[in-house]
Amino acid sequence: MANKLKIIPLGGLGEIGKNMTVFEYGRNIILVDCGAMFPENDMWGIDLVIPDFAYLRDKLDLIRGVILTHGHEDHTGALPYLLKEASLPIYSTKLTRGLVEVKLKRAGLLDRAALNTIQAGDVLNLGPFEINFFEVSHSIPDGVGLAIRTPAGMIVHTGDFKLDIGAELGAGPDLSALARLGQEGVLLLMADSTGSERPGFTPPERIVEETLEEIFANAPGRVIVATFASLLSRVQQVIDVAVRQDRKVAVNGRSMIENVAMAQEMGYLRVPPDTLIDAKEIDRYAPNRVAIMATGSQGEPRATLALLATGAHRQLEIRPDDTVVLSSQMIPGNEEAIIRIINQLIDRGADVIYDKIAPVHVSGHGSQEDQKLLIRLFRPHYLMPIHGESRHLHQHGRLAQQIGVPKDHILVLKDGSVLEVEEKRVRVVDQVEQETVFVDGSVVGDIGPVVLRDREVLARDGFVVAVLAADANGANVRDVQIVSRGFVYLRESEELIQRIREEALRVAGESARAVPERVQRALERFLEKETGRQPLVMCVIAE
Amino acid sequence: MANKLKIIPLGGLGEIGKNMTVFEYGRNIILVDCGAMFPENDMWGIDLVIPDFAYLRDKLDLIRGVILTHGHEDHTGALPYLLKEASLPIYSTKLTRGLVEVKLKRAGLLDRAALNTIQAGDVLNLGPFEINFFEVSHSIPDGVGLAIRTPAGMIVHTGDFKLDIGAELGAGPDLSALARLGQEGVLLLMADSTGSERPGFTPPERIVEETLEEIFANAPGRVIVATFASLLSRVQQVIDVAVRQDRKVAVNGRSMIENVAMAQEMGYLRVPPDTLIDAKEIDRYAPNRVAIMATGSQGEPRATLALLATGAHRQLEIRPDDTVVLSSQMIPGNEEAIIRIINQLIDRGADVIYDKIAPVHVSGHGSQEDQKLLIRLFRPHYLMPIHGESRHLHQHGRLAQQIGVPKDHILVLKDGSVLEVEEKRVRVVDQVEQETVFVDGSVVGDIGPVVLRDREVLARDGFVVAVLAADANGANVRDVQIVSRGFVYLRESEELIQRIREEALRVAGESARAVPERVQRALERFLEKETGRQPLVMCVIAE
Repeated sequence: MANKLKIIPLGGLGEIGKNMTVFEYGRNIILVDCGAMFPENDMWGIDLVIPDFAYLRDKLDLIRGVILTHGHEDHTGALPYLLKEASLPIYSTKLTRGLVEVKLKRAGLLDRAALNTIQAGDVLNLGPFEINFFEVSHSIPDGVGLAIRTPAGMIVHTGDFKLDIGAELGAGPDLSALARLGQEGVLLLMADSTGSERPGFTPPERIVEETLEEIFANAPGRVIVATFASLLSRVQQVIDVAVRQDRKVAVNGRSMIENVAMAQEMGYLRVPPDTLIDAKEIDRYAPNRVAIMATGSQGEPRATLALLATGAHRQLEIRPDDTVVLSSQMIPGNEEAIIRIINQLIDRGADVIYDKIAPVHVSGHGSQEDQKLLIRLFRPHYLMPIHGESRHLHQHGRLAQQIGVPKDHILVLKDGSVLEVEEKRVRVVDQVEQETVFVDGSVVGDIGPVVLRDREVLARDGFVVAVLAADANGANVRDVQIVSRGFVYLRESEELIQRIREEALRVAGESARAVPERVQRALERFLEKETGRQPLVMCVIAE
Repeated sequence: MANKLKIIPLGGLGEIGKNMTVFEYGRNIILVDCGAMFPENDMWGIDLVIPDFAYLRDKLDLIRGVILTHGHEDHTGALPYLLKEASLPIYSTKLTRGLVEVKLKRAGLLDRAALNTIQAGDVLNLGPFEINFFEVSHSIPDGVGLAIRTPAGMIVHTGDFKLDIGAELGAGPDLSALARLGQEGVLLLMADSTGSERPGFTPPERIVEETLEEIFANAPGRVIVATFASLLSRVQQVIDVAVRQDRKVAVNGRSMIENVAMAQEMGYLRVPPDTLIDAKEIDRYAPNRVAIMATGSQGEPRATLALLATGAHRQLEIRPDDTVVLSSQMIPGNEEAIIRIINQLIDRGADVIYDKIAPVHVSGHGSQEDQKLLIRLFRPHYLMPIHGESRHLHQHGRLAQQIGVPKDHILVLKDGSVLEVEEKRVRVVDQVEQETVFVDGSVVGDIGPVVLRDREVLARDGFVVAVLAADANGANVRDVQIVSRGFVYLRESEELIQRIREEALRVAGESARAVPERVQRALERFLEKETGRQPLVMCVIAE
C-alpha cells in the first residue's frame, strides 16, 4: 500500500500561540514551527504553555527537520523543550536564526540544534518533502511561507502573514509568485486566521509612519515610543522619523537594546551615525530634540513604560511636556495592565497617544480582504484556517464560504486532528489526545487542574492553617496555633484570630482524639459566617 | 462672609465606577449618586470598591438628600454602605427607585432610606439647591441629568448620557430644553466622559434592532441573546423582534427573570400575551420559533451563557443549529472570560455573533461628537469631565479645547478635589485624601496592600508551611511536617516534599534552638533552586 501524507496540528488551533504542525509521510516527519503560548489570566502562576510532544516521542528519529516561519515566541518558544528530547536540524531565515541562537544559548542547548539558514526563493528537500519558501510581510522581518510539494500534492502553509498590498511596489510579498503556485495546483492551503474579525485590508506601515512624523514634528518635548522589541520595521520607522525631525534616539529596556544591537549587526536596521545616544546623555539635548524607544507596550510590570508610569525608573522621569506613544495593539488579557499604565502616565502630565485615539499601529496579520485575496491567489482545493482561537478559525471559514469555497472543503479543526491527504482528497481520520502542558518555573508538566484550583482559592481569600499541638493520634490537644496569609489583615484582626483558635480548640475537644477533617470543616463554616470569605483551610496535628 | 459652594467628587474621576459627588453650601449638603466599582483583576478576591465616606462622617446631619441619576450599580451600589452610617432621604425616578428598593430590601436597610420619586421636568428644592431634572438617554431607562441652581450659579451634572440624535423625533433627550438652560447661563458643566475615545456620534438603538431582525429571520434554529439584565431597551427590542419574527421568548438567568418581571410590572416593558414561555417548554416548539434571553454577556462564571458554554446548564444544551448573540460590549478586564465563552460556544457548534463582527450593540454613552454637541448646547463657562479613567477625562478635555473651550476653563481633576465656586469663578482649593475602600465578603475596609500582595504571591506559586514539633523555644526538634497547597502537585511530588522536610530539619538543627525565620529563608532558597518557583514560605514551632 502506498504511503499517505498525514498532517497533525499540535498547536495553534483554538488558541493564539504555541503554533506547531507535524507533516508525516512514511518514515519521514517535518515540523513547521515550535511555539509557546503566554498563559491566560486564570492559569495562575504559569509561565508558559507549550505543545504536547507526546505524539512525537516514539518518532523522534523520523524528524528530518524543524522549519521556522519567523522568529516570534509563538512560533519558536517551545524549541528548547523539544530539543531537550532530541537533537534536531533547524531551518530558518537569517534573522530568525539569530533570535533562536540567542534563545538556545541562554538555555544551554545550542549543541542540540543544527542551525541552517534558508531564504525566500530557496528550495529545500527533506526526504519526500520539497519545500519552497516565499516571502510574507509580518510584524517581524524575514518571515516566510511554505509551499510544500509532497507525493500527495502541494500544501501551502502561510505562517503569520499580511499581503501588504498598500506597500510600495517592490516591497512586500510577490503576489505573482503566489499566483504561479496557485496555477500549479494547491491541494490544501493552511492560512493564518488571526485577523479574520477585522474588515477590509490591513493598511500598510506607512500610515503609522505618517502619524509618527506628525507627532515628532509637533511634540513640545521628548517623544517616548513604546513598541515590541521584535517589531524591527517599527523601530526602523522611529529612527527614520527621528532623523528627519532632528531628534536623537535613546534606546531603553533590555530586550529593546539587545534587539536593536543584533538587528544593526545583522543589517536589518539602518541607523545613521550620531543618531543613537545613551539614556544618560538625554539631558544634554533640548527635550524637543530627543526621542526614546522603550519596552513595555504590553504592560509588562518590569519594562520601561511601567517603571516610568509608577515613577520607579532609575534614570528617567516623566515630565509634563513628554509625549508617550504606544505603537502597538492591546493584546486581550493585557488590556487592563496597559490601560492602567496609560492612566498613570496621563496623571503624571504626559500626553499619551495609543491606538484607540490615533493610527499609531497596524496589525502584522492580514484582515478579511487579505484573507480572501490569498484564497483567490492560491485557489486551493481545501482550506484549513490555522493560527487562531475557535472564533478566528470559524470566522475565516465563514469568509471563505462567502467567496464560494464549498463548506465541506473548509477544515475548521482542533489541535491533535489527524488529517490524511491523498491525491485530491483530504480528510480527518483520527484525533491525537492533547494535554495542556504548563511550564512553571523550571518544571515542565507537573501543574494540572488541582494545583490551579488551589491557587484560585488562595488568590481570592488566602489560607488559614490550624496547627494542633497534641499527643500521638490527636489525643490531649494542648494548644492551637493559627497560621494565615491573604485572609485578613493580621495586625488588626487579633481578636478574630483568637476566636478562630477557640473554635478550633472547641471542635478538637468534642471527641477524645482531634479529627483534623472535622476541625477543618468547622473552621470553614465559622470563617464563612464571620467574614463571608472562603479561605483554604487546613488542620495539622503536631505531636 | 458669604457662603461659597463647594463641589467634591468622591468617586468616578480616574476610574470607571463608584460615581459620587458632594455639593456643599453652608450647612447644606446634597449627594449626587453613590456608586460602587467592580474590582480589577489584580484586586485579588475583592468583591467591590466603594467611595471613601471619610469626608462626610462628621457632616452626616447636613445631608439633605441623595439624588440618583439612574439605576446602574456604578451609581447606586454603595448606597447600602452609606445608609449603614446614616438614615437619608433618596430622590430618584420610578425605575431607579424600584431597583434601589430591591437592593435595600436584600440588605435589610429599607428602613434607613426615605425613598422619593421624581421625574424629568420636576423641580426639587433641597435647602439652597433648586434641582431641575432633565431626560437623558442611556442603556437603562429613566435616566436623568441635573441642572442645579445654587446661590453661586447653575451647575449641570449630566449623569451617564447619550444624546441619541438618530432616534425618532419625540424620543430621546429634549435638546431644546437643554439649549434653554444654556441660554440661562451654565457656570459649570459636569459631563460624562466614558465615550470620549469613540469618534462620531453614538448610533441609535435602531441599528441593533435591524441586525437582530435579520438574525432572527435567518437563524436556522434557536436564537439565544445575552445582554445586561438592566438594559431594558434591548430586552424590549428582543421581544419586539421575536414577536414580529414569530418566535416565543424564554427568559433565563436569575437577574434577567427578576428584571423582566419587575419592568413588566412597572410598565417599562411591553410584552404581548402568549410571547413568554417557560424554559421547560422550549422543546415543545420548533427551534426556529424560539428565542432565549440570557444572562452572562460579561462572562460571569455562574450566569446562563457560561453554563451553556461549558455544558453545565441544568435545563439547556447548545445544539449545532443554535445562534448565540452577545448584545453587549466587552468591558475591559472581562474580555478574556467573554472570549473564552465565545470560543467554547463555537466549539459546541453554535454560530456566535458578537460586537466585533456585527452591529449587535451600541453604547449607552455619547461619543466625541455627542460630547461636543452637549458643550455647544449648554455653553458652560467651565467644563469638568466626569465619569471616566484619566484617559477619558483627558481626552474629553482635548475635545473641548478643539472646539474652543479655553484650557484654563477645563477642569480635569482627581477624586477628592475640592472645587470652590463663586459667581463666575471656579477653582480647586483643596484635596481631600481618598483611601481605596475594599469590600471583601461581609467585611468593609479591612483589606489593604499587605493582604493583596500575599494573595498575589499565593496566586502565583501557592504556599509551603513547615511545622516543627519541638520543645519550648524550639529546642530538640523532633519532627517536621510540610503543609502545602498550590505549589506542586502533591501526589506526584512525594520525593520533593521529603527533601523539603530534610532541608528544614538540617537547618533547624544548625543551632541549639530552631529559628523559624532561618528555616523559612533556607526553604525559600531551596525551593527557588529546585523548582524556579517562589511560594509563600512560613515556619512555625509547635511545642
